[in-house]
Amino acid sequence: MPNRHEIADPGLAQQGQIKIDWVAKWMTVMNTLSERFKSDGIFRNKRIAICIHLEAKTAYLALTIRKLGAEVWITSSNPLSTKDDVAAALAKNGVHVFAKHGASELDFKRYIRAITESKPHVVVDDGGDVSEFLHQNPEFGENLKGICEETTSGVTRLRAAARESKLRYPAIAINDAGSKYLFDNRYGTGQSGWTAIMHLTNMNVAGKVVVVIGYGWVGKGIALRAKGLGAEVIVTEIDPWKALEARMDGMRVMTLITAAPTGDLFITTTGEKYVIREEHFAKMKDGAFLANAGHFDFEIDVPALRKLAISEQEVREEIREFRIAENKSVYLLAQGGIINIAGGLGHPVEIMDLSFSVQLACIHHLLTSEKLSPDVYPVPRHIDEMVVRQKLAVDGIEID
Amino acid sequence: MPNRHEIADPGLAQQGQIKIDWVAKWMTVMNTLSERFKSDGIFRNKRIAICIHLEAKTAYLALTIRKLGAEVWITSSNPLSTKDDVAAALAKNGVHVFAKHGASELDFKRYIRAITESKPHVVVDDGGDVSEFLHQNPEFGENLKGICEETTSGVTRLRAAARESKLRYPAIAINDAGSKYLFDNRYGTGQSGWTAIMHLTNMNVAGKVVVVIGYGWVGKGIALRAKGLGAEVIVTEIDPWKALEARMDGMRVMTLITAAPTGDLFITTTGEKYVIREEHFAKMKDGAFLANAGHFDFEIDVPALRKLAISEQEVREEIREFRIAENKSVYLLAQGGIINIAGGLGHPVEIMDLSFSVQLACIHHLLTSEKLSPDVYPVPRHIDEMVVRQKLAVDGIEID
Amino acid sequence: MPNRHEIADPGLAQQGQIKIDWVAKWMTVMNTLSERFKSDGIFRNKRIAICIHLEAKTAYLALTIRKLGAEVWITSSNPLSTKDDVAAALAKNGVHVFAKHGASELDFKRYIRAITESKPHVVVDDGGDVSEFLHQNPEFGENLKGICEETTSGVTRLRAAARESKLRYPAIAINDAGSKYLFDNRYGTGQSGWTAIMHLTNMNVAGKVVVVIGYGWVGKGIALRAKGLGAEVIVTEIDPWKALEARMDGMRVMTLITAAPTGDLFITTTGEKYVIREEHFAKMKDGAFLANAGHFDFEIDVPALRKLAISEQEVREEIREFRIAENKSVYLLAQGGIINIAGGLGHPVEIMDLSFSVQLACIHHLLTSEKLSPDVYPVPRHIDEMVVRQKLAVDGIEID
Amino acid sequence: MPNRHEIADPGLAQQGQIKIDWVAKWMTVMNTLSERFKSDGIFRNKRIAICIHLEAKTAYLALTIRKLGAEVWITSSNPLSTKDDVAAALAKNGVHVFAKHGASELDFKRYIRAITESKPHVVVDDGGDVSEFLHQNPEFGENLKGICEETTSGVTRLRAAARESKLRYPAIAINDAGSKYLFDNRYGTGQSGWTAIMHLTNMNVAGKVVVVIGYGWVGKGIALRAKGLGAEVIVTEIDPWKALEARMDGMRVMTLITAAPTGDLFITTTGEKYVIREEHFAKMKDGAFLANAGHFDFEIDVPALRKLAISEQEVREEIREFRIAENKSVYLLAQGGIINIAGGLGHPVEIMDLSFSVQLACIHHLLTSEKLSPDVYPVPRHIDEMVVRQKLAVDGIEID
Repeated sequence: MPNRHEIADPGLAQQGQIKIDWVAKWMTVMNTLSERFKSDGIFRNKRIAICIHLEAKTAYLALTIRKLGAEVWITSSNPLSTKDDVAAALAKNGVHVFAKHGASELDFKRYIRAITESKPHVVVDDGGDVSEFLHQNPEFGENLKGICEETTSGVTRLRAAARESKLRYPAIAINDAGSKYLFDNRYGTGQSGWTAIMHLTNMNVAGKVVVVIGYGWVGKGIALRAKGLGAEVIVTEIDPWKALEARMDGMRVMTLITAAPTGDLFITTTGEKYVIREEHFAKMKDGAFLANAGHFDFEIDVPALRKLAISEQEVREEIREFRIAENKSVYLLAQGGIINIAGGLGHPVEIMDLSFSVQLACIHHLLTSEKLSPDVYPVPRHIDEMVVRQKLAVDGIEID
Repeated sequence: MPNRHEIADPGLAQQGQIKIDWVAKWMTVMNTLSERFKSDGIFRNKRIAICIHLEAKTAYLALTIRKLGAEVWITSSNPLSTKDDVAAALAKNGVHVFAKHGASELDFKRYIRAITESKPHVVVDDGGDVSEFLHQNPEFGENLKGICEETTSGVTRLRAAARESKLRYPAIAINDAGSKYLFDNRYGTGQSGWTAIMHLTNMNVAGKVVVVIGYGWVGKGIALRAKGLGAEVIVTEIDPWKALEARMDGMRVMTLITAAPTGDLFITTTGEKYVIREEHFAKMKDGAFLANAGHFDFEIDVPALRKLAISEQEVREEIREFRIAENKSVYLLAQGGIINIAGGLGHPVEIMDLSFSVQLACIHHLLTSEKLSPDVYPVPRHIDEMVVRQKLAVDGIEID
Repeated sequence: MPNRHEIADPGLAQQGQIKIDWVAKWMTVMNTLSERFKSDGIFRNKRIAICIHLEAKTAYLALTIRKLGAEVWITSSNPLSTKDDVAAALAKNGVHVFAKHGASELDFKRYIRAITESKPHVVVDDGGDVSEFLHQNPEFGENLKGICEETTSGVTRLRAAARESKLRYPAIAINDAGSKYLFDNRYGTGQSGWTAIMHLTNMNVAGKVVVVIGYGWVGKGIALRAKGLGAEVIVTEIDPWKALEARMDGMRVMTLITAAPTGDLFITTTGEKYVIREEHFAKMKDGAFLANAGHFDFEIDVPALRKLAISEQEVREEIREFRIAENKSVYLLAQGGIINIAGGLGHPVEIMDLSFSVQLACIHHLLTSEKLSPDVYPVPRHIDEMVVRQKLAVDGIEID
Repeated sequence: MPNRHEIADPGLAQQGQIKIDWVAKWMTVMNTLSERFKSDGIFRNKRIAICIHLEAKTAYLALTIRKLGAEVWITSSNPLSTKDDVAAALAKNGVHVFAKHGASELDFKRYIRAITESKPHVVVDDGGDVSEFLHQNPEFGENLKGICEETTSGVTRLRAAARESKLRYPAIAINDAGSKYLFDNRYGTGQSGWTAIMHLTNMNVAGKVVVVIGYGWVGKGIALRAKGLGAEVIVTEIDPWKALEARMDGMRVMTLITAAPTGDLFITTTGEKYVIREEHFAKMKDGAFLANAGHFDFEIDVPALRKLAISEQEVREEIREFRIAENKSVYLLAQGGIINIAGGLGHPVEIMDLSFSVQLACIHHLLTSEKLSPDVYPVPRHIDEMVVRQKLAVDGIEID
């Protein structure tokens, strides 16, 4: 069967291929796992449906699964993050691809149907949209051995379903693997968030007042790197233990309303809705920047900002100026979307190598296992450990 | 009833009092709690038995309880850590004290009996020795509402007893409070361990190779401060996740046997026995230093070192030289005991303020509660939170 | 007189204008100086010739001078750094512009002639090319009150001329101002060099071995930020004092040949020719990256690398792979040109604000002064101090 | 001739010897130089007079010179820093010693006479007191080939004399050697200042507001280590370039009067008189600490503090409480003397190894040279370089 696809421009395939080849070299853990799984034939003739931000690193996961003998059906978990050239390269390499940058909500739904109508054996999901579809359309789930859910928010939805006994399929909470959550938020977002901010603004970080809202893993990573770049860091928190940790780490700690007039750059990392609100905008100084490093794009109350504004305009790629008083503008980066993806290149390759290696091994695990009862499962410890040990090995690090 | 005591020299009381007055000023959280508990009369006429390293900070906990109306009976959890002047000051202030620096094992046992024969309502224990005694001598435990155990190792013993259904009393695992474990190991030992090392040796840390064995809370604290002091840091670990964390934090990571010839200073932080052994000593360079920052004094295999040595001598206070080859000596700090206590002043005051405030509030909680069934309980979350919020408050830090 | 220009595409003006408007907002020191110089009319009807990398920040300097009443003639000091849209915007704003991206060597020479044939009163030079031309063609220098030379290398050429009594014009060594050299190399290159590397490669810095060659201002900045990003840093030096400084700052220090097999990323910062050579390439591991953060593009011996290579190819924008053995490739960033400009956006705006404010004030100084005798002069201390004090003032920082 | 001495207690010799033996092991650069100078006999039968803080490191310099064949006459540059046990050990080893802890001003003057009446060939001075005496009593200077002056303040006095043509002897400004000033202030005082503060107070640094007054070498060192220990650092400066450097290094920068109500700990590093004054004390919060890390003990206006105080008392070794309002006390460390010496153990051994190696080589240089004309000379570059290269060599560091 020839592969099916709905992509923007097949002519972009070569350009996309170069990008995939680049990440291929550096996803060394996944390459080792792939080598290991080659011989057992577990992937052969299985159907895997994937719905994750479709860029080069994801594409390489898809290609790796393809090379192991499976049929791969893929779409993007967010039409804005789809890279058309990468999609074209996948199509050319025998993957069934349904993805266009900027696709409509309707198309997005159609794509999800498209990748599942093959009745996949395993689904790789990112936020829970495919899961939801398969619960509504169980006929497509009849071969399903399980779901690998990448994110916390997807896992939350699955757990809610499990609690209400509505979960139909076993699911693995990929995010809970130490080899993922200990590294991607702190070191991945910590670095790539700042790369995006510095590249978008071309502004100095040293000597600036950076206000980090939240001191969880993402907040810790953003704050640590801000210090490493020479900023004065203010942390705001609602959790008293984390607030005291931040203080002991040398950060200034105060409420956001107190920090508002001082900050040069505000970065949200909480996962909560509208943590920067009208009352804060009102107290900010002219020239303040706003960025979000949390998963959801609602941490900054952009609607309120828009209402408050006398005028707004795009002043530079992914920088939007909101003039909120005669002599006062604030600048929103990447529309309030997650800064390292919406305004940059996403996590560094090596960080995604860890996450996607966990994914690959968990797919293998689901394909190998007896059918599990519907529930949310942690990543098996031996898989988690194998991935992190492999990472140490490819980096030439020996431990006792 | 006049208070009873067995101390080295009552004449040292004034000197001890000055030390206690010093810490009194800085234990601001405990002072606030003490103020709060004054009115309810809960402590009045209760008997509290305490067995913790007897120095100024512990003494102030005892005095605070005394001031709240309780009778306090105290000994030291380790005769080597007893400060005779502080003991004298306690005796003068109406506390029943049984503690002499360098007391014999036999005396130590006698002291434990002495502080419990009053049949205490609450015991504050540090390592589990009083608990054990009360299990062997239940007649002294008949009024006991519960045990507050300070350390992980004590909690481990209590949990073992609970599993075998041999636990007779309820116990609270003080160490598990976030307001304790998130701060005392990382920031407390991190700072005070280095203060001790620098004060004992008068040597430069910048430009040295510091090998930190273990990257748990203590290891993280020691490694972080080592970097902050300008050292090159090598971390050894057995846990692959922690090893990768250390690497991402910019530390070099390798096995101890590989690090052995390079290190200028080796610091154990694992809680495991004999992690630095003969094979490592053999590869070290002339002039290497050995220190332990973990709870137990057995992380460095001192017996093996002694056997290996051609000669040994005290070359400076708390620095012992072991000549292990014609031109090679290694130097053991503080006899391999926990460096910040055995070779220094212990945790900074503010860190103990957190731990002892949790203690004070848990004693209050046990005295207030209906008798609990024998089990190991976590610190109630509202107490943990109250302590950390109070700390933020006294430091003038507002959070959202 | 209408303005003259030779640019790539006037249609790009609006796009260029947006870029200039962006930097205009953040060059706050220059804006204050411009305000101050408005009233005295010193710039009115003067002719200023500028030859600096033509991008938005330089353009804003030109426009500021134009607004103060002078005629501005401008070209780029390097055709590869010319931004055609910015050039178009300048042309539209009444500046005489001669600059096309990728212009030939011949065109470059013609442009220098073009901007000087107006017989400028002050020349702003970057590397000494205009100076040289004016020494060869003194008829164009007859009105010249002085040269403001931006770089160390330009100053070196001028000083050599002065020593041989061949210098015809007074020149100010802009680079020697504390407000420039204390900040642009360390903080400017330190940040923007890393932004470029991270953006080009999308790779993790944490956990990598970064070899910084040279520990002068640039090296210190690059090394400091590398640590701040979580790298293990190795420094190589020829100067023993700097080597020891690096060591005391916690860096590993060794020879380059020793570091060669270990490094993941090599960054030159020396100003010397061919500091990374064949012998080093030969020892590097597969996947090593090479970048240059020094002024000249000859620090990495690219010709030798090319000769050594079995094959080479562009694998990603500004990343060139040299396959130098069956299983070994090294990757050259930005062709060995200065990484933050050739591979990124140049210094952060605020850093250039300092340098260009010194430039603006020195032009003003030359226009105001009696004609100085031909010599190389330092930036007058009162100008240097005014700029740095103004920077503190616009950032709201008060000092004693 | 038997050696002469005036010391407190010869019985302390053994205790002093242990201290000297300790530093002997770690002054590796000096040991190498000593080996090198052994063969040429230059020191033989020469007389060297030394006046430096008399503690173990200085004693080892004296003993090294003695072992090279010279007669050594020594006193302390400050009676408060004299260690009587070390003095006793020197006396026992054939050095002429005139030094008692706490000697009177009169005795101090007598000692200076005593060490110079042998008509020394070289004088090692620390602050200029011996130099002054020899200018007043030139009969003792008739054999003098030169003075090696350790400190900036001594050099300042010598330079003033040179300017007024009153200098009678050549002098070498030891402090100006890169191998000294690049390391002792920043890394030496940076570390040992904090060791002293932490050891004296047993207080937490993490989470504190540390106000560093001055951002020269000492200020940079103190501020850098404060950050490394987890403090929030505020810098005050009068020099705008240094103020901006501090800002770019991530410090908060403000005036001292603004910082006064916020600081938990104030550390002076300026060399100026009374930089913390009544107006600042008045605004400080209860519990603020005051320390001085500069050379002179007058940076904190202690007389004003004393006048302001309702009462004062010693609350702990080297901590003096000044109660300046009903509920407000500030605490002065080490009487305002230089914190790392008056309140601690002085520079780390390895740092003094650098300084004293420069001293040793400069004495050798003066003894070898033709008599120089009276002037202040820099340390010869070849000596400075030899010392720093030797330091790298003994630490096993190779450079290109």
